[in-house]
Formats: sequence, structure tokens, C-alpha cells
Amino acid sequence: MNNFTFCTPTEFVFGKGVETEVGKIVCRYGGTKVLLLYGGGSVLRSGLLARVEQALSAENIEFVHLGGVEPNPVDKKVYEGIDIVRSENVDFILPVGGGSVIDTAKAIAAGACYDGDFWDFFVGVAPVREALPVGVVLTIPAAGSEGSGNTVITKLDGLHKLSLRTDKVLRPRFAVMNPELTFTLPPYQTACGIADMMVHVMERYFTNTLHVEITDRICEGVLKAIITEAPKVMSNPCDYEARANIMWCGTMAHNGLCGVGREEDWASHFMEHEVSALYGVTHGAGLSAIVPAWLTWMVSHHADRVVQLAIRVFDVEEKDTPEATALEGISRLKSFWRSLGLPLNLHELGVENPDIDLLVDKLHENKGEFVGRYVCLNREQSREIFELAR
Amino acid sequence: MNNFTFCTPTEFVFGKGVETEVGKIVCRYGGTKVLLLYGGGSVLRSGLLARVEQALSAENIEFVHLGGVEPNPVDKKVYEGIDIVRSENVDFILPVGGGSVIDTAKAIAAGACYDGDFWDFFVGVAPVREALPVGVVLTIPAAGSEGSGNTVITKLDGLHKLSLRTDKVLRPRFAVMNPELTFTLPPYQTACGIADMMVHVMERYFTNTLHVEITDRICEGVLKAIITEAPKVMSNPCDYEARANIMWCGTMAHNGLCGVGREEDWASHFMEHEVSALYGVTHGAGLSAIVPAWLTWMVSHHADRVVQLAIRVFDVEEKDTPEATALEGISRLKSFWRSLGLPLNLHELGVENPDIDLLVDKLHENKGEFVGRYVCLNREQSREIFELAR
Repeated sequence: MNNFTFCTPTEFVFGKGVETEVGKIVCRYGGTKVLLLYGGGSVLRSGLLARVEQALSAENIEFVHLGGVEPNPVDKKVYEGIDIVRSENVDFILPVGGGSVIDTAKAIAAGACYDGDFWDFFVGVAPVREALPVGVVLTIPAAGSEGSGNTVITKLDGLHKLSLRTDKVLRPRFAVMNPELTFTLPPYQTACGIADMMVHVMERYFTNTLHVEITDRICEGVLKAIITEAPKVMSNPCDYEARANIMWCGTMAHNGLCGVGREEDWASHFMEHEVSALYGVTHGAGLSAIVPAWLTWMVSHHADRVVQLAIRVFDVEEKDTPEATALEGISRLKSFWRSLGLPLNLHELGVENPDIDLLVDKLHENKGEFVGRYVCLNREQSREIFELAR
Repeated sequence: MNNFTFCTPTEFVFGKGVETEVGKIVCRYGGTKVLLLYGGGSVLRSGLLARVEQALSAENIEFVHLGGVEPNPVDKKVYEGIDIVRSENVDFILPVGGGSVIDTAKAIAAGACYDGDFWDFFVGVAPVREALPVGVVLTIPAAGSEGSGNTVITKLDGLHKLSLRTDKVLRPRFAVMNPELTFTLPPYQTACGIADMMVHVMERYFTNTLHVEITDRICEGVLKAIITEAPKVMSNPCDYEARANIMWCGTMAHNGLCGVGREEDWASHFMEHEVSALYGVTHGAGLSAIVPAWLTWMVSHHADRVVQLAIRVFDVEEKDTPEATALEGISRLKSFWRSLGLPLNLHELGVENPDIDLLVDKLHENKGEFVGRYVCLNREQSREIFELAR
């Protein structure tokens, strides 16, 4: 086990109706003037935004709006937010939405406390030393950003989709999580969220740091719970218990618990970031298109952990060769994702003629000569995986 | 799933040699004058206390000593600590040890900020509103107190062993956890710690709040990891990887993660508290003597979760009746504990003639008419379980 530091100070307020408490909670964390950040019209149509506004007003907390955050969020909205924060003397950022809205909020929170360009953080020119406090009202269980210190933003100029990972400073102060708010998520969004959280676990499961049994078992437990609960939310979107399980799984998958004490991989995420930056697809669907190819390539290059995943998570009985066991596991993962309506390759994702040269170029331009840790992929190897994913 | 609030702000600094960083960490959390709290001579003999002192001095942090905290810690030492804190203007409490030392530290931290008697907190007369910050150097993986907001103290007058549970205020600011410090733990202490952490999970696993699959899976994962790693630490006490796994399992078992979203039981702990208060046994050994009786009684009264434990944790194949499956699971748990050298009943614990009348009286005097939640035990029922445990 590697030495590690682990700290998850976010206060999770979870359950039916909890969004009505958000004013009191913001108050408790010292917010007096809030930037209310959201995406499209769904939070308006559902009445959620109005309920949040009411909860803030009841505590005499002022707020200003910034709507229109889009999936695969971009730098433009971050700059807009930073300007508002400064001109309006905002002291608390409250995203109401999913990963894109929360990630934008984090970038604004850090950027507003920094004299230079916030993009410096993403290219490693400057560390995030301070940030405005962020609290979250979560509506999409997927990205796990409500409990993580991470954010992913795309710079439109050059289409650089980069992630920023902080230890503690960008973890939300609180996350208000009402599973009822996810009842109206369309099936495709629900399924994409499920793929995203599963891959958050898998990026940490694929490691060369052995003998971290406790972290393995937690990873496997989260994956097994997702596999049990996902079909329930797909067949009955208003199943509160199943929605609640999936929502909490999303947080557990990405708050760091599944990676404790070891090296992590993240090649699949980095490869997908190029796909969604270039083709504007939903991140979770991009992952379900890339990951089967990544896993299949691993079977002939470094099968060990694929075998363990097959046996412990997908209940595969050991076959004559480790490779056969691993392939059966991948087949079961694909059947599972197929049953949720997810694409299993780029073609099914709607990317008929992927520009693989460009994907490989951008990947290594953004991430360096080698990508991933479980196997450090060079250009030729990442190209092979993109080709397998066609 | 029940509504819940979950917040674990403790910063875990884990790995080889990390105790040398303790001065810097205390500094970061604002400590300038520290109460250094510990138990017997082992931290002196091992040189650990000297290393901690050195780390504090290097940051110009003053400290005063309070040694001699005993297992099953008592109120007397808490009063002593509160007096020192007040007379010496201590602003940070640093326990170096296991659960008893940490629990004493928490009681001192809360009591020093309160005008009345600290025991008020334990009998529910006053809530803990504030406390001095506590940081931990852990030497015994068992109680999980390094990551919990709980403390258990015995009032000598009347032998009341009571627990106090807070949401956040008594969670340590940090816990420094070096698995190497546990290499010298005697086998019996190691085994008792393992029983304690397993029962911390089980108290939360035995619940009537169904459909919390994610929490079930995390509980089962922690138990499975303990079962895999425990034999390794018993046969090779200096196996760093196994010690590290067990140490982190102890934290995971009791930081609240295993109880998220549901009712918990705790009858076995409350029954054991009476046994250790009366007979001075080690808490973990008291648990391994009580829990098999508790489980066996449950098989004929409410077997459901015993069955699930048997199947999912002890890999029992389903038998003709749920009861038979459950009993096979209990048998495997007992074999496992036996293999660690733990007692499986009061006789083996060294309590030849337990005063069961007195145990039942004290239990219900301290905990009320009904004890536990999975089945709410009345006096007759708790007596039956004590009898089964003879």
C-alpha cells in the first residue's frame, strides 16, 4: 500500500425533500451572497430553482443567477462566472445540477481568488491555493463531482479538455442530495451516469499497487451495488430506493475512497475526453464506447486485474486460461451496458468515421508521451485501442 | 433508505514514517500547546513518544504530559485531563495510542469547554456544542475512534460504561496512521482489535432498513477484507501490507460509512460494555464472547440478515432452510475467531460464573427497557442471550 493522505470534509445531506434546507446550510457555511449556477431549463421547469431561491430568501441570503452551463462545460462560462463574482461581491457558489454545473462552479471558485488566468490551474502553471466555498444541489448522479476535489473544463480555443485534481480546496463544503430529483432524468442520461460512475471505480481498480485488499473490496462492492440497482432505475424511474442507491454509489465511486493507497489509471477517461471534446457526445456514453476496447486490449497485454474484475464483480467462474476468464468478464460488462441502452463502440455512439489520427494527436498533446498507469500507453498503443473502439 | 447527514472531515495521514510529520500537522490545525495523552509504557519503550515530542518541538509547539490511561478508560482520567488543560492553557489534545486513549482525549476536549460536569454529555443532560481540537497518533487498529465522533467512558462510581455519539464535533481533525507502529502489538491484542472492527460493521449490518444495497456491499467488503488479511497479520506480525489493510479496515468499519442511510443495532456492544465494566476484560474479546450468542438467538427470532451475512460474507451455499444457512454462517465466524485465538463465550473469556442478574440489571439500567434495534430486546430476551453466552 502506498502512503496516502485522505480527507473528505464534504457534508452530505441526503434524502427526501432536503433541498428545502439549502438556505440554512449556506448560512451555516457563511454564505451571504450566492452565485446560483445551473444548466438548461430543467431546473426551471421542475420548480427546483424556485424552491432553492425560496430557501435562500428565507435566510436573507442574496443571489445572482448564471444559467446556460452546457454539458462538456467550457472556459467561456467560467470567465463569465468569475466576472459576476467580482462585480457582485459574491461570497458563495451554489451549483444546482450535475457534473458540468458543479465543475464550472469549482473553476469559478478557484479562478475568482486568483489574479492570473484560471486556465493556469489546468495546465499546471499554478496550484489552487484558495477558492470561494462551493455547495452543491445535485440533480444528476454520475460525475461524482459533489464529493470530489476535481473539475474538468474544455478550453474552446484548441479544444483542450483538461482535468484539475485538488486534494481538498475544491471539495464542496456540502452536497444536498435528494434522489427524488432524479426521477425525471431521461433513461439515456440515467444510463450514461451509471457508466460514468462504474468507470470512476474501474480507473482506480486498474492499478499495479497490489495488496490493497480493503480498497479492492470497496471498489467491488460499489460496482456490485450499481449492477444490482441500475436495472431497477431503468425499469422504474420513480423507484426511490434504487435511485437513492445509485445516487450514493455515484458519490462513493469518485470521492477518493476507491483509490486509497495506490496508483490509479485514468487512460480511458483521458481517451474519452478527446472523443467528447471533438464530437460533443455525452461523457458516460463516450466511456461505454471506449472502455470495452481498453479492457480487451489489456487482456493480451496485462490481464491480471481484468481477471479479478471478471471473477469478483461479474461472478465469472475461472476458465482454462486467465485470458478466457477476462474475456468472459468483458462480455458480461458489455451485456450489462447493452441492457441499459448504452453504445459499446464509437460507431454505436454515432461517430461513424472517427478521426483517429486527430484523437491520438490531441490525447498525447494534452497528456504527454504516455497515457495511463496500469499500462503506460504510447501513441501506437493508444491508436490500437481507438481502432478497437471503432 | 433513511434520510441522513454524513460528514467525515478527519484528515488521514497514512503510511510508513508519517508520525514524524505530526508537529507540522498540529501546527496546520492551529495547535500551540498540546496535551500529550497516552496509556502505559509501550509508547515510551518503543521510542514513539520521543519521536512525537521531537516533531512537536521542531515546530516550537509546547506540550504537557498525561500518561496512564488504562483500557476501558474511566472518568477519573478525564477530570485529571480537564484540570491540566485549564491550568496549563492547552489548546490541542494529542492522544498517542488506541481507542481508550483517544476516547479519553475526546471526553477531555469536550469537558474542557463546558462549565458543568462532562458526564452530563454521556447521560444526555447536555449536548456537546464545542470541543478543543483533537488529533490522533494511532497505535492500535480496533476501536475506529480515530475516524469517529464517538467516545466510550466508564464512570467508576456505579460502574456506568456509557457511549457518547456526536455527528462531527468530536471527530479528530487528523489521524496519523503508520502500520509499522502495530508490528509489536501482541497477538491477543491484534485479534481483539480484529473482532472489535468486525463487530463495528455487524452492528450496522443488522438493520431493519432494507434496500440499502450500497451500504450492505461496503459492509460486506470491509468484512471480507478483514477475513483475508487477519490470518496474515497473525502469522507474520511484521507483514506491512496486511497490517496496513487491517489498520484502514478499522477506520472504515467505524467512521459511519457502514451505517449510512439506516437504523443500526448496537445491542452486542451494549451487552459487552456491561461485561467489560464488571470483569475488566478486553473489549474485543468480550465481543467475540457475546456476539455468537446474540447471532444464534437471532436465528430463531429474526434470521434474515444472519442469512445474508452467511451467504455474502462467509460464502455459505444456501441450505434447505434459512436457519440452517444462518447457523452455518455463525459456525464459520466462530471458526475464524477461534483461529485468531479469541474466546467464543464467557467461560473461555475467563468469566467462570457470570452474575447474569447483575449484567441484565446494569444493561437495562444504563440503556433502558429495550436494547438494540434489529430486535428490541427486553430484560427476558437479553437474559436469554447472556445465558447462551455462558
